[in-house]
Amino acid sequence: MASTQPTGAIGRLMEELGKLPGIGPKSSERITHFLLSGETKDVLALADALRDIVQKVHPCRQCYNLTEGELCSICGDAKRDPSILCVVEQARDLASLERAGAYRGVYHVLQGRLAPLDGVGPDKLTIDALVHRVNQGGIKEIIMATNPTLEGDGTALYVSNLLAGSGVKITRLARGLPSGSVLEFANSQMLADALEGRRLF
Amino acid sequence: MASTQPTGAIGRLMEELGKLPGIGPKSSERITHFLLSGETKDVLALADALRDIVQKVHPCRQCYNLTEGELCSICGDAKRDPSILCVVEQARDLASLERAGAYRGVYHVLQGRLAPLDGVGPDKLTIDALVHRVNQGGIKEIIMATNPTLEGDGTALYVSNLLAGSGVKITRLARGLPSGSVLEFANSQMLADALEGRRLF
Repeated sequence: MASTQPTGAIGRLMEELGKLPGIGPKSSERITHFLLSGETKDVLALADALRDIVQKVHPCRQCYNLTEGELCSICGDAKRDPSILCVVEQARDLASLERAGAYRGVYHVLQGRLAPLDGVGPDKLTIDALVHRVNQGGIKEIIMATNPTLEGDGTALYVSNLLAGSGVKITRLARGLPSGSVLEFANSQMLADALEGRRLF
Repeated sequence: MASTQPTGAIGRLMEELGKLPGIGPKSSERITHFLLSGETKDVLALADALRDIVQKVHPCRQCYNLTEGELCSICGDAKRDPSILCVVEQARDLASLERAGAYRGVYHVLQGRLAPLDGVGPDKLTIDALVHRVNQGGIKEIIMATNPTLEGDGTALYVSNLLAGSGVKITRLARGLPSGSVLEFANSQMLADALEGRRLF
């Protein structure tokens, strides 16, 4: 029936919201009605915040983290150790590591991972900039922190091969059992990693 | 640490997204990074859709459903039966009933429910407009379709008392077991409703 599918401005908003990750038709309808029954200024604040990220946010000149300035807050922080460089796929991975609060070095964001089947080759990533940065000197260790997936591992392998001649120590994040989990539900790859990486007690 | 909490445009968007129903800190971060890594035009389309609902959408002059015109698509539809009036709390309830596709009458949206403890009295709802509409004649049946909650029931009772002298038949939605459910998980009120409303086989 024509009247069951909202059209016009309401339908358009539901459609746009429905494109966001984790938001299905039910959620987009719920959010739309929440916004319609709320205050005008809250809706406009959200619209402005969206416009702002488009206009103000861009990659950091040095590490490709997202920032509003020339350098991101990490590259611009004199307390961070510039001799340790952590290579991540995306800015969101950097954000996760920062939340953990266990790292005081700097980063390099690849802006993706190598995915030949999707047509993502080395030229689509910030690998050239990473090599250039390493060649300028001052870096003692590079921590590969790509995702523990086939493509993430492949990307880490490619990058580490490329930097092998630089004389910089290259490490990767540890693999094993996720803290707080139970052996019963660990898959075979997790258990294999945990066994392979076992340490003295 | 200062750098763990995003500030500026990114932090502002996360904050605004986090105000939406069903979107927690994790989701708002995920959506923000999704938008940052997506196309500029998609972000602006969402921002525009938000501005549009503020500027274009308002209550229908007749039934208080949300619309961009003078009358909503249901009030303006000659194929709907204007002699049957379904009273709902919110426009989203109307949308749910329309999706079910089992109703061909018209609606009246109360724009809320009576909630004395929250300071919502009859004057905050569109009850006066409903009474006026019923007094103008032409309505044979009013279906009370407020939510099956304490406040929804109270609102329905108040409205039906007010319209008792109008000579119009007043009904309410059936209660019972939700279709597709199992008795084992039905609560006592559902079971009591199902017993009370039992029908001949």
